[in-house]
Amino acid sequence: MDLRNYTDAKNRRTALEQALKITLPAIGSFSLSEDFASHHNCENMVGAVQIPLGIAGPLDFSDDKKHTVYIPLATTEGALVASVNRGIKAVTLSGGASVTSHRAGISRAPVFVVTNGKAANVFIDWIETNQKLLNQIAQETSTHLKLISIKTWHSGRNVFVRCSYDTQDAMGMNMATIATEKMVSFITKETGVVCASVSGNMCGDKKANMLNVIEGRGIQTWADVELSPEIIKDVLKTTVPQFVETAHRKLDIGSRMSGTIGANAHAANVLAAIFLATGQDMAHVGEASTVMTEVEQGKNGVYVSVYIPDLPVGTVGGGTALETQQECLKIMGITGATEGENVKFFAHCIAGVVLAGEISLLAALSAGHLSSAHQKLARGTS
Amino acid sequence: MDLRNYTDAKNRRTALEQALKITLPAIGSFSLSEDFASHHNCENMVGAVQIPLGIAGPLDFSDDKKHTVYIPLATTEGALVASVNRGIKAVTLSGGASVTSHRAGISRAPVFVVTNGKAANVFIDWIETNQKLLNQIAQETSTHLKLISIKTWHSGRNVFVRCSYDTQDAMGMNMATIATEKMVSFITKETGVVCASVSGNMCGDKKANMLNVIEGRGIQTWADVELSPEIIKDVLKTTVPQFVETAHRKLDIGSRMSGTIGANAHAANVLAAIFLATGQDMAHVGEASTVMTEVEQGKNGVYVSVYIPDLPVGTVGGGTALETQQECLKIMGITGATEGENVKFFAHCIAGVVLAGEISLLAALSAGHLSSAHQKLARGTS
Amino acid sequence: MDLRNYTDAKNRRTALEQALKITLPAIGSFSLSEDFASHHNCENMVGAVQIPLGIAGPLDFSDDKKHTVYIPLATTEGALVASVNRGIKAVTLSGGASVTSHRAGISRAPVFVVTNGKAANVFIDWIETNQKLLNQIAQETSTHLKLISIKTWHSGRNVFVRCSYDTQDAMGMNMATIATEKMVSFITKETGVVCASVSGNMCGDKKANMLNVIEGRGIQTWADVELSPEIIKDVLKTTVPQFVETAHRKLDIGSRMSGTIGANAHAANVLAAIFLATGQDMAHVGEASTVMTEVEQGKNGVYVSVYIPDLPVGTVGGGTALETQQECLKIMGITGATEGENVKFFAHCIAGVVLAGEISLLAALSAGHLSSAHQKLARGTS
Amino acid sequence: MDLRNYTDAKNRRTALEQALKITLPAIGSFSLSEDFASHHNCENMVGAVQIPLGIAGPLDFSDDKKHTVYIPLATTEGALVASVNRGIKAVTLSGGASVTSHRAGISRAPVFVVTNGKAANVFIDWIETNQKLLNQIAQETSTHLKLISIKTWHSGRNVFVRCSYDTQDAMGMNMATIATEKMVSFITKETGVVCASVSGNMCGDKKANMLNVIEGRGIQTWADVELSPEIIKDVLKTTVPQFVETAHRKLDIGSRMSGTIGANAHAANVLAAIFLATGQDMAHVGEASTVMTEVEQGKNGVYVSVYIPDLPVGTVGGGTALETQQECLKIMGITGATEGENVKFFAHCIAGVVLAGEISLLAALSAGHLSSAHQKLARGTS
Repeated sequence: MDLRNYTDAKNRRTALEQALKITLPAIGSFSLSEDFASHHNCENMVGAVQIPLGIAGPLDFSDDKKHTVYIPLATTEGALVASVNRGIKAVTLSGGASVTSHRAGISRAPVFVVTNGKAANVFIDWIETNQKLLNQIAQETSTHLKLISIKTWHSGRNVFVRCSYDTQDAMGMNMATIATEKMVSFITKETGVVCASVSGNMCGDKKANMLNVIEGRGIQTWADVELSPEIIKDVLKTTVPQFVETAHRKLDIGSRMSGTIGANAHAANVLAAIFLATGQDMAHVGEASTVMTEVEQGKNGVYVSVYIPDLPVGTVGGGTALETQQECLKIMGITGATEGENVKFFAHCIAGVVLAGEISLLAALSAGHLSSAHQKLARGTS
Repeated sequence: MDLRNYTDAKNRRTALEQALKITLPAIGSFSLSEDFASHHNCENMVGAVQIPLGIAGPLDFSDDKKHTVYIPLATTEGALVASVNRGIKAVTLSGGASVTSHRAGISRAPVFVVTNGKAANVFIDWIETNQKLLNQIAQETSTHLKLISIKTWHSGRNVFVRCSYDTQDAMGMNMATIATEKMVSFITKETGVVCASVSGNMCGDKKANMLNVIEGRGIQTWADVELSPEIIKDVLKTTVPQFVETAHRKLDIGSRMSGTIGANAHAANVLAAIFLATGQDMAHVGEASTVMTEVEQGKNGVYVSVYIPDLPVGTVGGGTALETQQECLKIMGITGATEGENVKFFAHCIAGVVLAGEISLLAALSAGHLSSAHQKLARGTS
Repeated sequence: MDLRNYTDAKNRRTALEQALKITLPAIGSFSLSEDFASHHNCENMVGAVQIPLGIAGPLDFSDDKKHTVYIPLATTEGALVASVNRGIKAVTLSGGASVTSHRAGISRAPVFVVTNGKAANVFIDWIETNQKLLNQIAQETSTHLKLISIKTWHSGRNVFVRCSYDTQDAMGMNMATIATEKMVSFITKETGVVCASVSGNMCGDKKANMLNVIEGRGIQTWADVELSPEIIKDVLKTTVPQFVETAHRKLDIGSRMSGTIGANAHAANVLAAIFLATGQDMAHVGEASTVMTEVEQGKNGVYVSVYIPDLPVGTVGGGTALETQQECLKIMGITGATEGENVKFFAHCIAGVVLAGEISLLAALSAGHLSSAHQKLARGTS
Repeated sequence: MDLRNYTDAKNRRTALEQALKITLPAIGSFSLSEDFASHHNCENMVGAVQIPLGIAGPLDFSDDKKHTVYIPLATTEGALVASVNRGIKAVTLSGGASVTSHRAGISRAPVFVVTNGKAANVFIDWIETNQKLLNQIAQETSTHLKLISIKTWHSGRNVFVRCSYDTQDAMGMNMATIATEKMVSFITKETGVVCASVSGNMCGDKKANMLNVIEGRGIQTWADVELSPEIIKDVLKTTVPQFVETAHRKLDIGSRMSGTIGANAHAANVLAAIFLATGQDMAHVGEASTVMTEVEQGKNGVYVSVYIPDLPVGTVGGGTALETQQECLKIMGITGATEGENVKFFAHCIAGVVLAGEISLLAALSAGHLSSAHQKLARGTS
């Protein structure tokens, strides 16, 4: 049975049900537009999967100005929304998170094949000399794309050309690929140098790697806050020294002894939940989770920060166009296309909520409350 | 407005709609059991997010016996299901994937605080001497849990005790935490050594790290296949030398130059899609993506394999109990609780489909077809 | 001119001098036994290189008992001996370092080639079943060698078999290779499985890598001390908060942001100097330098520790047999062959002096004195 | 007994001999200038250590022009010089190595402390705006130093400012520290931002780390050659397919599975030996050993290359000024100070001989000859 031969989700589902002698009523019960999704997001569509959606917040944070936002989190992990909410409370009572960002851009890095190191140098010189022209070619593929930088590395016969793009509100991986392929064609035509793969794994797409951490990818984002001893006691149910000690032993020492890229408590949990709610590419959870969480005792309490070096997100394109995901973006006040302001604001919301998530879990760990929270809230099913 | 004060999703949603002056009809249109989900999976629930679900396959693979399965993939990335399907076709026409696995177990690693290195040795000796007793204590917390191994590392005043558990069909992170907390209480009572955090980041939970790659985590899984030159030409539209060259330059060289943990084409894409369909914890995508893909030219074509050192998955508990996710598991023939056979079979399905995904993307890259596939199938929205 | 045709160092040197129209009087002025060195340590010998040797200490430390040792350091880096000496003073005034160790053993990891993952399992089962026999075969190659453990990893057609050996007082890399080669011959004869390389880079020999950090290599060693505020002020010319802050920002944060394996101030400096003085293999400096230095504020001052997970050293064999190197070992009281006690004591000396080196540099950095020390002592030539 | 109280090496040695009741005639027998060494290279000097020096070569290589050089290697590892020599023969018979390089510069990265992320941005803006001025301040410290680049990273309250310098023929770590300290003083005076450590471990000095691999450090160097099947058979005693297979399984797969930075056979061996002969800082062996060795089958044999991303070497200053080390540099035709041409040429020699070393060991491994070479040449003492 080839499901591609069926014309719509219902027919495919029925065929599958008959072939497997099962029924799939829940999968078949969806309200998203099949016409849109089956053309843009998913082949061989048979229905939809539903993920519970909770709301955390309101979270206060400031970048150039002050914001108060509700955060949509789609998750199946009981206790996560409650835990994040507690962290948000601590952050908001502390005056809100302070957030900054920098667009590193989405990267695509073809690998070219040269005859040897000297030829690599000639080729790299050509690339550097023609950077302006290459940007022109890239920009012809979309009015929403600009080349931010081209960097090269080479070893043996392999020259990697990492192109990073500003793709406005889009996460932009496809736009970047299309632009890069056009540049590759031009480069090969002009230089005779052949490309072995438009993606040579120095793009760092969907893999946790040090290159993305060092160069940045997507929207690099930082958020921080200073928590008073009172908030640590009353909201977070722990003490300043315990909080700081747990963070040091876990984040600083445990992370390096395990050879972890980044050092955080559970950034992946929060990132996955907000990514899922808002239609991000879930395969980006790994690289985005290379978060650095810093905790230090200050004069008036504890300073906590998160640094997300690699945050490839968008507010248009991909899964963001689906109905439920659109509504989740709307909950944060994000609608329509801008020239990148929306995605920047979205990245700031993410940084703020990741910060809140780190604070809450570190507090629970330092107080010895991890499984009790899970047991109380999620009944310890797994 | 504190959403925790509202009794159900509808009231919360309405409150949110009024507060934000928006409407959330799509989020409110869901068929999953609110009662179950709001108690087990998600606090402050306002509805559900829907993700398009496609079906790939049927995929043939063998472990102890032969299997033919349809694979449910929930994704918003156009072209993914089609691409995986092409890889599945190549694998199945080649006689199917050959799959093996090993249960490394789910790990939890508390960090204990001792006075110095000599005290660390005394403490570690105590742990080793009392391993049997500790296993008993762990097992008292669940009939579905067994301690597989305890390993220790220490630096300075920090002793990390990595406990790995067999949790049968459950992914088991919560069970492992509960068991570990009970052991920690006992250890502290007996030895006087205090625990600074039940999770000391040598668990490696939800972070890409070398420790998990070296020790394994969850169900370590291997899948491989030998592709004939004809299949490479007819199904994959490329040639043997191009396929092998692209794989070498991208996987071997690009991965190491970028400091990537693992070396694969896009394992995260496939893992995210099957995780999402089946109710896995999406925060595990990062660690699971540290996949090693090997490609080598053999006598009769190309040998391709994937090795997933860290695959923390389950077929009961967590998100697997939700209606749509249950149905997705059923599509693969997985229902009910076993003593671990189901999760093993599920891991094997995952390995097979990750293998298929690697093959298809490497072929597309080697033939220079990446963006054209995306443009044709997904209309290049992003 | 082929220098292999000349019979001794003098003739070779003269030939070289004539060919290049230079004179090499310093290289020609050496007292080491040419006969021994040219047969055991160096082909095409033309003379010797001289490295200044300084003495640090006496250093107090305790393992099972108390020791007081002078430490020979061969270095060309002005200020190093003086800096280490200051650290030793601080350590010794604090009651001496406390040192522990564990023999992980020297490793050699051949890579075998199998047809696929299922065959890998069969092969690995065979290895595990025959471990006793393999140990017998290994031991036949030397009365000073015992197999500690065999561990396997596999991906695709590659099975890596990491064999770790107790080689008593020898660093043992050659002994391990000989034993492994004999095992490999036997394995291939019995199983038909071919070995592609007796060293498959999972030995981790002479490369900084996470596997050695996690598994340990050579003699894993720990040393620690608690420094009082007075010693920090009077000997180290800094303050407790400054010392702790510098350590945290440099070791914890700087190391992880740069993707460093380990986290230390300058362990490589001290390791290189004592390695050079005592005839160790200088190519081991890299892997040995993956040291973890921990600094934390305690009740009565600052606790500092070093953990050297990978210390492949020996007191017999290799360069240790040369005259000057023998004398350096003698300075620490190390002579002759034992069943491993000597090398253990030597490793403890190393850990103690590495600890001292870390303390002194961290203090200098925290006080802002780095280059002034260098300028005063080494006249800032480079 | 405080050795600092003695006026010269002889007195110190005698005191040590009496205190320990030993004799140190070999250490006392040295020809290097005590006056120079004890003031520039080593405090508490008691004599010198002697290391056997062998000569490999002549090696042919070309950069802008053709060169033929003898390579001095100081080592205690029997078989190393012979093995390198065999590789040199293969390279030279193949027309010589082809070598290129790029000066990344020596780096020093202070860590500054700011109040939060927003303050970090203000501070970084200031640094970027004042780059010209900072370069002026740096250059005032030496006529042989120029600032190549300043790059910043920040997380939490920590701003790392990585300054990379052209230091002409000097390795330049001390010069870089002095220049950086002067800049730090100025920066703190102007901005009020305090520096916690002039070295914040994002310098990457003397540690194997990904940042140096990605950014480069010292003189980045590449060398390659194409070996014919005849040379592989006649000189290297192996076959093309065996050579390529061994390289792939060891370098590509073994390296990534062990979490190694870089991927090479034994670059550290060759680097350590030439570093030792020429007075380099032996603590730099670790970072320099993060070499990438590439092997691929070409039309007419096998292409082999090495890429040394991090090669911090000098031909003036430090240990290079010692008599025997000076003569070793002279053997390669390197004398006096230039504006950087000498160090570039020296780096090229290193790259060529590292390439030769890789070829020879990979050949021995592929032919199964590793320990037999060691046993024949070094009598297998260890």
